[in-house]
Amino acid sequence: MANSIGKNVILTLFGESHGSAVGVVLDGMSPGIAVSEDFIAGQLSKRRPQGATETARVESDNFQIVSGVFNGYTTGAPICIIIPNENVKSSDYDKNFGIVRPSHADYTAHVKYCGFEDYRGGGHFSGRITAGIVAAGAIAIKALENKGIKINTDILRSGDATTDADITDRILNAKNEQDSVGGVVQTVITGVEAGVGEPWFDSLEGVIANAVFSIGGVKGIEFGAGFKFADMKGSQANDAFCINDGKIQTKTNNNGGINGGISNGMPIVFNTAVKPTPSISQPQQSVDFIKGEETTLEIKGRHDPAIIRRICIVISSLVAVVLCDMLACKAGAEALK
Amino acid sequence: MANSIGKNVILTLFGESHGSAVGVVLDGMSPGIAVSEDFIAGQLSKRRPQGATETARVESDNFQIVSGVFNGYTTGAPICIIIPNENVKSSDYDKNFGIVRPSHADYTAHVKYCGFEDYRGGGHFSGRITAGIVAAGAIAIKALENKGIKINTDILRSGDATTDADITDRILNAKNEQDSVGGVVQTVITGVEAGVGEPWFDSLEGVIANAVFSIGGVKGIEFGAGFKFADMKGSQANDAFCINDGKIQTKTNNNGGINGGISNGMPIVFNTAVKPTPSISQPQQSVDFIKGEETTLEIKGRHDPAIIRRICIVISSLVAVVLCDMLACKAGAEALK
Amino acid sequence: MANSIGKNVILTLFGESHGSAVGVVLDGMSPGIAVSEDFIAGQLSKRRPQGATETARVESDNFQIVSGVFNGYTTGAPICIIIPNENVKSSDYDKNFGIVRPSHADYTAHVKYCGFEDYRGGGHFSGRITAGIVAAGAIAIKALENKGIKINTDILRSGDATTDADITDRILNAKNEQDSVGGVVQTVITGVEAGVGEPWFDSLEGVIANAVFSIGGVKGIEFGAGFKFADMKGSQANDAFCINDGKIQTKTNNNGGINGGISNGMPIVFNTAVKPTPSISQPQQSVDFIKGEETTLEIKGRHDPAIIRRICIVISSLVAVVLCDMLACKAGAEALK
Amino acid sequence: MANSIGKNVILTLFGESHGSAVGVVLDGMSPGIAVSEDFIAGQLSKRRPQGATETARVESDNFQIVSGVFNGYTTGAPICIIIPNENVKSSDYDKNFGIVRPSHADYTAHVKYCGFEDYRGGGHFSGRITAGIVAAGAIAIKALENKGIKINTDILRSGDATTDADITDRILNAKNEQDSVGGVVQTVITGVEAGVGEPWFDSLEGVIANAVFSIGGVKGIEFGAGFKFADMKGSQANDAFCINDGKIQTKTNNNGGINGGISNGMPIVFNTAVKPTPSISQPQQSVDFIKGEETTLEIKGRHDPAIIRRICIVISSLVAVVLCDMLACKAGAEALK
Repeated sequence: MANSIGKNVILTLFGESHGSAVGVVLDGMSPGIAVSEDFIAGQLSKRRPQGATETARVESDNFQIVSGVFNGYTTGAPICIIIPNENVKSSDYDKNFGIVRPSHADYTAHVKYCGFEDYRGGGHFSGRITAGIVAAGAIAIKALENKGIKINTDILRSGDATTDADITDRILNAKNEQDSVGGVVQTVITGVEAGVGEPWFDSLEGVIANAVFSIGGVKGIEFGAGFKFADMKGSQANDAFCINDGKIQTKTNNNGGINGGISNGMPIVFNTAVKPTPSISQPQQSVDFIKGEETTLEIKGRHDPAIIRRICIVISSLVAVVLCDMLACKAGAEALK
Repeated sequence: MANSIGKNVILTLFGESHGSAVGVVLDGMSPGIAVSEDFIAGQLSKRRPQGATETARVESDNFQIVSGVFNGYTTGAPICIIIPNENVKSSDYDKNFGIVRPSHADYTAHVKYCGFEDYRGGGHFSGRITAGIVAAGAIAIKALENKGIKINTDILRSGDATTDADITDRILNAKNEQDSVGGVVQTVITGVEAGVGEPWFDSLEGVIANAVFSIGGVKGIEFGAGFKFADMKGSQANDAFCINDGKIQTKTNNNGGINGGISNGMPIVFNTAVKPTPSISQPQQSVDFIKGEETTLEIKGRHDPAIIRRICIVISSLVAVVLCDMLACKAGAEALK
Repeated sequence: MANSIGKNVILTLFGESHGSAVGVVLDGMSPGIAVSEDFIAGQLSKRRPQGATETARVESDNFQIVSGVFNGYTTGAPICIIIPNENVKSSDYDKNFGIVRPSHADYTAHVKYCGFEDYRGGGHFSGRITAGIVAAGAIAIKALENKGIKINTDILRSGDATTDADITDRILNAKNEQDSVGGVVQTVITGVEAGVGEPWFDSLEGVIANAVFSIGGVKGIEFGAGFKFADMKGSQANDAFCINDGKIQTKTNNNGGINGGISNGMPIVFNTAVKPTPSISQPQQSVDFIKGEETTLEIKGRHDPAIIRRICIVISSLVAVVLCDMLACKAGAEALK
Repeated sequence: MANSIGKNVILTLFGESHGSAVGVVLDGMSPGIAVSEDFIAGQLSKRRPQGATETARVESDNFQIVSGVFNGYTTGAPICIIIPNENVKSSDYDKNFGIVRPSHADYTAHVKYCGFEDYRGGGHFSGRITAGIVAAGAIAIKALENKGIKINTDILRSGDATTDADITDRILNAKNEQDSVGGVVQTVITGVEAGVGEPWFDSLEGVIANAVFSIGGVKGIEFGAGFKFADMKGSQANDAFCINDGKIQTKTNNNGGINGGISNGMPIVFNTAVKPTPSISQPQQSVDFIKGEETTLEIKGRHDPAIIRRICIVISSLVAVVLCDMLACKAGAEALK
């Protein structure tokens, strides 16, 4: 539902890039989950820009837990976390008002919100809002760890970019050319037992995809062999069942741990395609919707030449929340047995 | 919500492959939309298996509109459509009960539903259920056409399969080898004005992805350039704005018509990755969960060597329903202006 | 959501009074609940008009379970039940089309649905639709009985109507005067453990009230002492806690088993105010919205002089479904402990 | 959904009585609604305790609009408002921990949240949380005023309490006796056109009832003649239609402006029963759930001898939000015409 996701565990986002704060409400978490402010701070630090490959806008992310945590544990009531915005330079945006940034949400937000949108720094569409996802996700990640579930997202290395240094080089080269780069990141979730997920419209693939596409810059997702299935035959693609240590497993994992939208006990694996950051310093052709004419845009501001590093913790955090919801849905579906 | 999708326009699926009927409830459609039973029948015929490339189980799909249509128009009340199952051979399944078909939902359904699932022919996970999607989608497609919106899904031709005959050859070759094939299908939606879609968790990409992943066999989706973005730079990827005939458009459409989750007025374009049909006649290694031992499975039954033809109308139909919902959400978001 | 209610256990209604059938989809029931067609039939018979105090339109209610039940047990997939309409006399309605029946939904439905509504016999607003509630409720009632929960609704006897014969007299007197009567019915639910219900907008009172107000003719609801609280002092109203057989209970039950929206382990008690059936045979002043003029309406058709007997099973059935949902929500809220 | 209400316009509450702040997220309001901080402050002042008839805990309610408002107008993005808690005396509660206050949520919250609840001052169940409702409601009330809709809630005067002074006397008498009183408040909504509300589970009565029952102390609601219908005949109860100034109206308004769950254009009228404040200074019998024994409780703290004055603005505010949602649902339902 627009700024909220989930049925039993519900995350709601609010805030704008250049407003006083961004934040999140996480509702439906069970009572009694230990909450560590240090862990949340550590997770937020993974989202923060670090070094030359990312934007110079750095926030301290001095979050405040407003509600829902008492004596170090979740109470079961909604958890609100506020993260003040500090390092804001709105003047960069005001002077370009009316000139829409290509491949950003400026134009679509302007049409949708009839000119009342907070346009500064992308407003409510800014990547800044994902800080709330990471803060809430930290609590979800801890809850999942208690259940033996771990989530990790990392840049998928392929072709001529097989080391971390290769990736840094690629990003810095683009930055030097006043350009940006995209990439693919891979998420692996281990420890999910078989039977999580719902048929049809709450399929694990569907709810994860819906979540991940909310993150700015994501333009594709594939589970297991994904688009490679297109060139495979059934005899190659099918994951044969076997018994290992008394447990039913599959010999291969082309389905990425999901059959019929429901986990089969194998690791859940998916890849996310991330487009190059739209904010580049090169002059770009655009339109000034106030003057109603074509124009050339030069974006100043402070921007990431790539978000494929910062997006990893955002994906893991959001998927953790979604997975908590799916576990709660599973419990709900079994309540009347 | 599991078997329901949508907020203002809500589709609910029910039925099993070998039960008495499958069906759908479509709620929230505006009153006054003309409903043609002939058009629905025509849409259902596109989903039906046709010829040697598809399964020999053919249904007449003699649907009945139970409610919500009066004097040829939608009333605004929920529309229930029932499609009886006719050509059912359950005996094919009974003798293999306990032996799970690789890459199908048999095992995960068995775990989730604790052994109470209707296992015959995939039960509630069967592609048969998509008949309800097509029937409801026919009404949604007509409603969209009234608004100038058209949806088409077709097999994406690439590599050495550039003609329809190439694709038929590829499928028949697999069939002859007792095998199956996957593929990629492309959906193009024209006529959607700018401003449709909601921020974050009701992004156009997210809601379409959630819908499409509900369809059995779908393992990936990408919008616009999708996974190709990974190898692009921002200067190549960004869609420059221009003015054509007084309208703001983009020169390229790498973003597939969507920025920030909201339509920008360009055609909406996405690709769906479909895995090879898991049901193949070759012997496969599997597990018998009753005996608790590994075994070899030979699937008899009647199956599609590929679903990439039949899935096209299902995707278009489901996306039509989802798009009706997004138009309703847009109207709701503007109600208080 | 209009024709659907519930979060984890979801009931969806469809059908019109003079269409081919009415029906229901009940989704989210756990797998493994025994389903008895005889029990459903028995419940439906309690809703059917019986004898001189009720309408002469009698349906056989030959329902069909279309999906979701296999080998006598729920499968966990959505349960669709269809109940054909048989004894339909649409001609009674056609000749009065345009003349709205006072205190019925004719006028509001006409405005809301822009003239496309199925106006025959109240269409989708007819009490006939509650047959679906009773059919689905029968399954919910059995599921609750397995948990030790029982629901009963009966006419609240007061003043000079303290026996069943008194009530029959009152109804028949009204019938003889071509009139109708209202009344109050009381629902008592036993066996609900403490801790069921959610804070704020899923309070037990709120969800039950929302459900019960969906039933045509309901105009008031009160829990425990309800409107009598207005004349009480806190020292009289408060339910003192005590310990009985090692269990925490309250000495009185003015709160009707609910504190802060959550069950406290005492019986849940609420009263529902039902207005007199609007369909009376006396001439009434009304309006013909086609001619745009005032007119006198004489309702022929077949109608109940009172629905306070028939509504009891409808309330119990609907509350059973809602309570199943609340139990599922409770399980969901505890899933991550 | 527990702490959220609404489908297109969604209000989410968070906070505890003795935490750092309470607050609200209001999502789905159209862009372009003028927001006056002075008006919000004025509405909050109506909720604040005033004078001898109410609690001595007085908050300044220095709210902060965190998001969703830009240059004095709603942007269409979620509006978060934070209201810090200032005048908190937690020590009053700590010493009684374990002893549940009769007719409060202490016991049910303890069971539901397994001992992890923030028990201080009622925690998340405190009336303090309604400050967020009033703040969000102020924006909704202004949006409705732009549409010609006005909402007013006032104490229903009856019997020997027909003046404001009578009511003050009644409350002060109870206070002097270390006791409290309940009452009935009446809400009247004017300016709602015919056709607002949805069939069955989004009936106007149902959604309003669900909202109003969320407020602590509410135990009954009736629309129009409500429980008086029980003693009426149809010929008395039915609201005859007539034409006034070319508009279809009813001569009486026993149905409180609602037929079939949908507004008929007449004023919407409902009464809410409010129980006496459970917190009284007299010794009460209770239970200490830590010691597992009966005990006598003496509540110190600062409490309202009646909430029937303060609750009026809370009901009006919450109903305003709900009505905004129903208008948005109506627009959604008509989107495809």
